[in-house]
Amino acid sequence: KNTLKEKLQNHQQPIGTFFELGSANVAEALGKTGLDFIIIDNEHGPFEAESTLDYVRGALLGGVSPLARVREISRPAVLKLLDIGVHGLIVPDVHTVEQVQELVNYAKYAPIGKRGFCPTRKDCWGFAYPGTESVPINMAVNNAETLLIPQCETVGCLENIETITAMEGVDGIFIGPFDLSISMGIPGQFDHPDFQAALKRVLEACHKNGKFCIYFTVNPDAIADGFQQGFDAMAYGLDAAVLVQAYRNILAKVRG
Amino acid sequence: KNTLKEKLQNHQQPIGTFFELGSANVAEALGKTGLDFIIIDNEHGPFEAESTLDYVRGALLGGVSPLARVREISRPAVLKLLDIGVHGLIVPDVHTVEQVQELVNYAKYAPIGKRGFCPTRKDCWGFAYPGTESVPINMAVNNAETLLIPQCETVGCLENIETITAMEGVDGIFIGPFDLSISMGIPGQFDHPDFQAALKRVLEACHKNGKFCIYFTVNPDAIADGFQQGFDAMAYGLDAAVLVQAYRNILAKVRG
Amino acid sequence: KNTLKEKLQNHQQPIGTFFELGSANVAEALGKTGLDFIIIDNEHGPFEAESTLDYVRGALLGGVSPLARVREISRPAVLKLLDIGVHGLIVPDVHTVEQVQELVNYAKYAPIGKRGFCPTRKDCWGFAYPGTESVPINMAVNNAETLLIPQCETVGCLENIETITAMEGVDGIFIGPFDLSISMGIPGQFDHPDFQAALKRVLEACHKNGKFCIYFTVNPDAIADGFQQGFDAMAYGLDAAVLVQAYRNILAKVRG
Amino acid sequence: KNTLKEKLQNHQQPIGTFFELGSANVAEALGKTGLDFIIIDNEHGPFEAESTLDYVRGALLGGVSPLARVREISRPAVLKLLDIGVHGLIVPDVHTVEQVQELVNYAKYAPIGKRGFCPTRKDCWGFAYPGTESVPINMAVNNAETLLIPQCETVGCLENIETITAMEGVDGIFIGPFDLSISMGIPGQFDHPDFQAALKRVLEACHKNGKFCIYFTVNPDAIADGFQQGFDAMAYGLDAAVLVQAYRNILAKVRG
Amino acid sequence: KNTLKEKLQNHQQPIGTFFELGSANVAEALGKTGLDFIIIDNEHGPFEAESTLDYVRGALLGGVSPLARVREISRPAVLKLLDIGVHGLIVPDVHTVEQVQELVNYAKYAPIGKRGFCPTRKDCWGFAYPGTESVPINMAVNNAETLLIPQCETVGCLENIETITAMEGVDGIFIGPFDLSISMGIPGQFDHPDFQAALKRVLEACHKNGKFCIYFTVNPDAIADGFQQGFDAMAYGLDAAVLVQAYRNILAKVRG
Amino acid sequence: KNTLKEKLQNHQQPIGTFFELGSANVAEALGKTGLDFIIIDNEHGPFEAESTLDYVRGALLGGVSPLARVREISRPAVLKLLDIGVHGLIVPDVHTVEQVQELVNYAKYAPIGKRGFCPTRKDCWGFAYPGTESVPINMAVNNAETLLIPQCETVGCLENIETITAMEGVDGIFIGPFDLSISMGIPGQFDHPDFQAALKRVLEACHKNGKFCIYFTVNPDAIADGFQQGFDAMAYGLDAAVLVQAYRNILAKVRG
Ligand SMILES: [Mg+2]
Ligand SMILES: [Mg+2]
Ligand SMILES: [Mg+2]
Ligand SMILES: [Mg+2]
Ligand SMILES: [Mg+2]
Ligand SMILES: [Mg+2]
Repeated sequence: KNTLKEKLQNHQQPIGTFFELGSANVAEALGKTGLDFIIIDNEHGPFEAESTLDYVRGALLGGVSPLARVREISRPAVLKLLDIGVHGLIVPDVHTVEQVQELVNYAKYAPIGKRGFCPTRKDCWGFAYPGTESVPINMAVNNAETLLIPQCETVGCLENIETITAMEGVDGIFIGPFDLSISMGIPGQFDHPDFQAALKRVLEACHKNGKFCIYFTVNPDAIADGFQQGFDAMAYGLDAAVLVQAYRNILAKVRG
Repeated sequence: KNTLKEKLQNHQQPIGTFFELGSANVAEALGKTGLDFIIIDNEHGPFEAESTLDYVRGALLGGVSPLARVREISRPAVLKLLDIGVHGLIVPDVHTVEQVQELVNYAKYAPIGKRGFCPTRKDCWGFAYPGTESVPINMAVNNAETLLIPQCETVGCLENIETITAMEGVDGIFIGPFDLSISMGIPGQFDHPDFQAALKRVLEACHKNGKFCIYFTVNPDAIADGFQQGFDAMAYGLDAAVLVQAYRNILAKVRG
Repeated sequence: KNTLKEKLQNHQQPIGTFFELGSANVAEALGKTGLDFIIIDNEHGPFEAESTLDYVRGALLGGVSPLARVREISRPAVLKLLDIGVHGLIVPDVHTVEQVQELVNYAKYAPIGKRGFCPTRKDCWGFAYPGTESVPINMAVNNAETLLIPQCETVGCLENIETITAMEGVDGIFIGPFDLSISMGIPGQFDHPDFQAALKRVLEACHKNGKFCIYFTVNPDAIADGFQQGFDAMAYGLDAAVLVQAYRNILAKVRG
Repeated sequence: KNTLKEKLQNHQQPIGTFFELGSANVAEALGKTGLDFIIIDNEHGPFEAESTLDYVRGALLGGVSPLARVREISRPAVLKLLDIGVHGLIVPDVHTVEQVQELVNYAKYAPIGKRGFCPTRKDCWGFAYPGTESVPINMAVNNAETLLIPQCETVGCLENIETITAMEGVDGIFIGPFDLSISMGIPGQFDHPDFQAALKRVLEACHKNGKFCIYFTVNPDAIADGFQQGFDAMAYGLDAAVLVQAYRNILAKVRG
Repeated sequence: KNTLKEKLQNHQQPIGTFFELGSANVAEALGKTGLDFIIIDNEHGPFEAESTLDYVRGALLGGVSPLARVREISRPAVLKLLDIGVHGLIVPDVHTVEQVQELVNYAKYAPIGKRGFCPTRKDCWGFAYPGTESVPINMAVNNAETLLIPQCETVGCLENIETITAMEGVDGIFIGPFDLSISMGIPGQFDHPDFQAALKRVLEACHKNGKFCIYFTVNPDAIADGFQQGFDAMAYGLDAAVLVQAYRNILAKVRG
Repeated sequence: KNTLKEKLQNHQQPIGTFFELGSANVAEALGKTGLDFIIIDNEHGPFEAESTLDYVRGALLGGVSPLARVREISRPAVLKLLDIGVHGLIVPDVHTVEQVQELVNYAKYAPIGKRGFCPTRKDCWGFAYPGTESVPINMAVNNAETLLIPQCETVGCLENIETITAMEGVDGIFIGPFDLSISMGIPGQFDHPDFQAALKRVLEACHKNGKFCIYFTVNPDAIADGFQQGFDAMAYGLDAAVLVQAYRNILAKVRG
C-alpha cells in the first residue's frame, strides 16, 4: 500500500518533488509523470492538514505516494497529517536527539511511541484496513507503513546523526542541502569538502543503521549523480519552478 | 444561550457525538437528530478554527451545541476556537496540573485566567451580547458560558484528577477510554477492575468538586449504562462511523 | 473501470444513494458501506462541477462509482460533469424526445453525438487512458464508459418512453417516483394502478431496448422489492436522511 | 419564519442592501445593523448556490432575511437557490409575461407552478418544518414563505407590469433604476418625468394587485423619500461601497 | 491596463496558454514565464466565476492577462466573468451569426450591446477606474478594454466568418483546430488542404475587418509557424500537460 | 515595494485597520479607502496562512500593504506568513526579551536570525525579485523589506521595552491598549496617568532606537491625536465594526 516504502526496500531509486502549487489537480497530474512521491510542503508552503487531505486524495488517485513536510515537531502538526493518511513525514529544523524522540512519540503508536489513537480518514473511520483489525495490529501496521524521515539540515542534527539514525521509529534521513550549508557557514557551497564529508557521514550513518537516505537537488542532472553516490531516493525541485521553467524553455525557443 | 450547560445543570442527560465528516450540512443535520452537542474534532480530524467556524454556524442553526476538541494546549489553538464562538472545549493529552493551569490561563479571562481580549465572531465584533456590555461583564459572561473540559486519558491526568477537578475554570472532565486504557497498560480492557476503579475515581472527583463528568462510548447500548453509572453526559461514536454503519445495516437486510 | 456499468451488465443488482451532505469525506466513507454508486446531486443540491470533482475523488478512492445528477440539459452542465470524470449522469426534468436528443449530443462524442473534445481530469489531461489513445478510440471508450440515464419523472417522458429508450446514447432510465406521481396527478400514491402501470411500461421499454432501469425508494424494505419487480439497480434514500435517522434510532432506544 | 414577509405585511418599512463582499462573516455582521434583508447577488456578483448557502447561514444566524438575486430565469438557477433556503428571489432581466410565467413554474410548487420536489437544506432534508408535514402542506408552506420578486428594469417589463403584478406566484416587484433608465433611453436621469411616471405606474400596478413594491437607491437620504412615495421596502447600496465609503469618511476627517 | 490588447495592437505576437490546474498560485506563477495571457477554462475545466476570480487575482499580480473561456453563450455566463474583471472572453461552440449577436448583447454595454450595469470587482465596486467616471465613459471604457473573441470551431461559424468578423463588438477570432477539424469531417488532419483553406479564410476575414486572429497548438515548434502564417497571437497547450511533460522529460533523462 | 515601510520612513503618517471579515474582496476594497495597511488577524480571527494568502493577493491588487497579526511566536506561525509574502508581522502576547529574540530568529535570515530558506510565493518560487538574486542579497532584501513589530500589551513587555526596541531585527512596536491596560490592572482606563506614562515610555524607547511606534484606537477622532502625540502610524478599528456602524448610522438617520 505504501508504494514508496516498497520501492525503497527494493532499491528502485524512487524520485519525488516538492508540491507547492496547491491544487488536487496538480497532485493527481504529478501521478502521471513517473514520479514516485510528492512532498506536500506544510513548512514553507501555506498548506495545513485540511488542504493537504485534498492533495493526498489527488496523489493517491494519480498513483504517487503522498508525503508531507510537517510544519514543526509538535503533537498536532504530526498527528493530524498522519491521521489524514500521508505515507510519510519529512521533518524540518531538527537539532537534537531529544527532538527526534519527541517526534517518534508523536508519530508512532506504542510501544515505539505514544501516538494518540482514533479512527480517522487513514482507515476510513475504522472501516478500511488496518482499522478493521485489532487495536495492536492496527497500531503495528500503521507504524510500519508510515515513513518518519527527519531532515538533516542543521549542524546539530549532523553531529547527532549516528544516534538519530539508530533510533527506533526513524525510517530515514532527508538532507536539505541549502539550510545545511547555511548552518555549516558555507552557504550554497555544495562542492566544499566539508559539505561533501557531511553527506558521506549522513549516508554512512543511515546505511549502517538500515535506514534510507534521501537527497534533494534543483539540478536535473544531479539526480543520477545522487543515486550513484548511494542515496536511496532523490527529491528534485519544486512543482512551481518546474512549471515556470518549462514554459520559459518553450518561449525561449520561439523568441530566441 | 449555551444550551448544553443548561441541560447539564438541569441533569437532562445530554448526548453528543464526534463530528469528523467536515461539512456544515452535516453539522446542521445533526441538529435534527435529538443530539445535544457535537464535538468538532480539531485533534484527530484535520479541521482548524476557520473550517470549524462553518460547522459552528451549521450547528447553531440546527440547534445543537457546538463543542470543539482543541488540537493542543497552546494559546492560539484555545483562543481561536473560543473566539469563533464554540460552546466549550474538550482538551486532549492532559498529563499535569500545570498544563491545566496553562489551559485555564488561555481560555478564561481575568481574574480566572489571562485570555486575550478582542471583539470577534463570538459577539459579532462587539455588536452582540455580551460584546455590548462593559468589559468586566463581557469577560464574566464569556467565562461562565464557555465550558472547559479536559480529557482524562492519561495516567498522569488520572493521578492528578482530584486537584484538576478542584481548579477554578475547569467545568468538567471528559473520559477518553481508549487512550486511558492504553496509558494504563490495559488497552481496550474496559471491564478491567483497574479501569472501572479509574472511572469511579474520576466521577467522584468531578462530583465532589461540583464538576460535570462525560464518558465516551462506541456502543449505543452503553449510553444508558453511562447515565446509570452517574455520568452527566455521554458522547457516542463518530458521525462517519454512524453513517457507514447505517448503510451497512440496510444493505445487510437486503443482501442477507 | 466503470464498475457500476460492469455490475449492471452482470445483473449484480447494484444499490446506490443520493449524495447531499457535500464533503469528500462523506463520499469516501460511502465507499465502505457496500453501496455501488452515489448520485452527487447537482439538481436539488447546491453542488456544481468544481465541488463535484472533490466528491468524485473521494468516491473513486473509497471504491464507489460516482454518478452525478446534472442540474439541467444544457451543454455546459453536461459537459463539465463528464469532463471531471463522473461515471454517469442522471438527468432530471425530461419531457420530450428532442430534449433527450439534445442531451445525447452534449454527452456523447461523434458519431453518436457532438460532445466537445478536450483533454481534462477524466483522462488526466491526456496522460491517462483513454486520453493516451488515438482520438477515435478515446471518443469510443468515453462513449462506452459513460452512463447516460434520463429520469422518467414527467408524463411527457412516460409517453415517449419507448422512443427514448430506443435512442442510441441512452443507457438506461431512472424513475423518480415523487415527481412522476405529481406529474400524473396522483402525488405519492405509489400503489395506484396507474402508477404501477407506468412502472411496468418503463421497465418493459427499457428491457425491450436493452437498457437498464433504476428505481428510487426511501423505504429500505422496498429495495429488495424493486429487484424482484425487475429493476436493474435501486437508489435508496439521501445520505443526509440516513445520517439523521440513524442517530434518531439510537437516541430513541436510549430515551425510550 | 420569513421575517421579511411578515414585516412587509405589517407595513414595517423594511430596509435591505446588496451583498457583494462574499463572506459568511459579512452576512452575519449585517444582521447586527438593523437591516431587514440582504440580497446575495448571484447576477453581478460571482456567487452561486453553494457559496450562497454559506451566506444564508450567516444571515439567518445574524438575524437578517437572506434573499438572493438569481443569475437568470432558468430552472436550476431558481431551484437551487430556493432549495438551499433563501427567503426570496430578486429576478433580473425580465422582459415578458412569458418569462415571468416560466419563473413561477420553476419557483412555486403545484398547483401554482411546477417546482421540482425533494427534501433539501431548506427543510433539513425532511427533518425540519415544513418537510415534516404532508407533501401538500409542505408545498403550500414553501409557496407562501418564499418571496418571488421580478425586477422591473426593462421597458418590456414596464409595459407588461399590470399583467405581471396580477400573476399568481408573483409576490412583488423590485425596481432597478439604473438599468430601467438605460432601457428607457434616459440613463441615470431619475428625475426625468418619464422615469417618475414609470415609478408611479409600477407602484400602482403592485398595490392594485396586492403586491409589494421595492425600490433601490445608492443615496442614503433617498431611503426615507422612497417610503414616502409609497414603496413597501427600500434596498440601499452595496456592502462593498458602504465599507469603502465609511473608511473614506473617517480618513477624510483625519487628513482634511 | 489590458496589456494583451495593447500587445495585439502593437503586433507584439503575444503567446498564451490554457489554465486547467486550478490554483491562484499557478496563475501567479504563469506570470513569471513570459506568457502574455492565460485562458481560464470555464468550458472544459470545472471552474466558474467564483474560482475564476481567485485565478484572475493571481494572474493580475503575476503580470499576465487573464482571459476566460466562457462555458456557453448565456447572459450569466458572460456577465459574471466580465464583472469579476477578466480581460477578455474566448467563446466556444459558436454556430450562427445570431449567437454572436446574442453574445455581443450580453458582453458589451449600450450602444453596442445590452450588458447589465452594476459596480463590481472589475471597478472595485465603483471606486476604481473606470467606475469612478460617468456612466457613459464607464461603459465605453469597459467596451474598449474587454476582448470578445468567438472560437471558430464549427462549420457553421466558418461559413459565417465574414459576417461574424464584421460585427461590432467582436474583437477577434480564436481557432480551435481539434473541434473544427472534427466538424469538417477531417478530425486531426491539420495538413488537409480543406483545413488549411479554412485557416486562410478565417485569417483573411479577421484582417479584412481589422480583427485579431488567434490560433491554438499543442506543438511548441508550431508557435513560430503560426506567427509566420499571420496569426496575431498563439495559444500553446494546457498548463497541466506542460507540467506533466516537463517532469517526464527530466525523468526520461535520468532513467534513460 | 513595501510601501508601508517607505511611508513610515517618510513620516507620512500611515493609517491602517484590522481585517477580520475574511474575504479577498474586502481586502481589495480596503485598498480603495485611502488606508495604508491592513492587519490580517491570525490571532483573534480564525485565519491561517492559506486564507491569509488570498487576502494578501486582494490587498496587493487593491494597493494596500498587507500585514498579518501572527497567532503566536513559533517557527511555523512566523515562517509561513512571511513565506506567503506579508509586508510585516504584528506579534501579540510578548512578555520577555527572550521571546523577542526567538521571534527574530524565526523571522529574519542570517546573520540577524535563523529563518529557514526556500523559494516561495513571496518571490514567485524563485522567479521574482529578490528570489532572482544571489542567496545573500535575497536574504538581505527580505530582511529589510519585512517589518517585525511586537505588540506591547503586557507589563512584561513594557518593562523590557528599552531592551526590546534596541534589538536588531525589531522594526517597531505596536501598542495594544486594551490588553496593556488589563495587564496593568487598569482595564480600559486609557487616561490613567500610569497608562499615559507607559505610552510615553514606549514612544521614547522606540524613537531613541530609531524604531517605529504604532498605536491602536477604536475612536476615529483619536487618530489625529495619536499622530500629534508622536506615533508614526495609527491602526483604527476593525473592518467588521466599521461596516456594522456605517449601516447603523445610515439607518439611524432614516428611522430617527
Ligand atoms: Mg530547510
Ligand atoms: Mg485521545
Ligand atoms: Mg425530480
Ligand atoms: Mg440590472
Ligand atoms: Mg472546442
Ligand atoms: Mg491583545
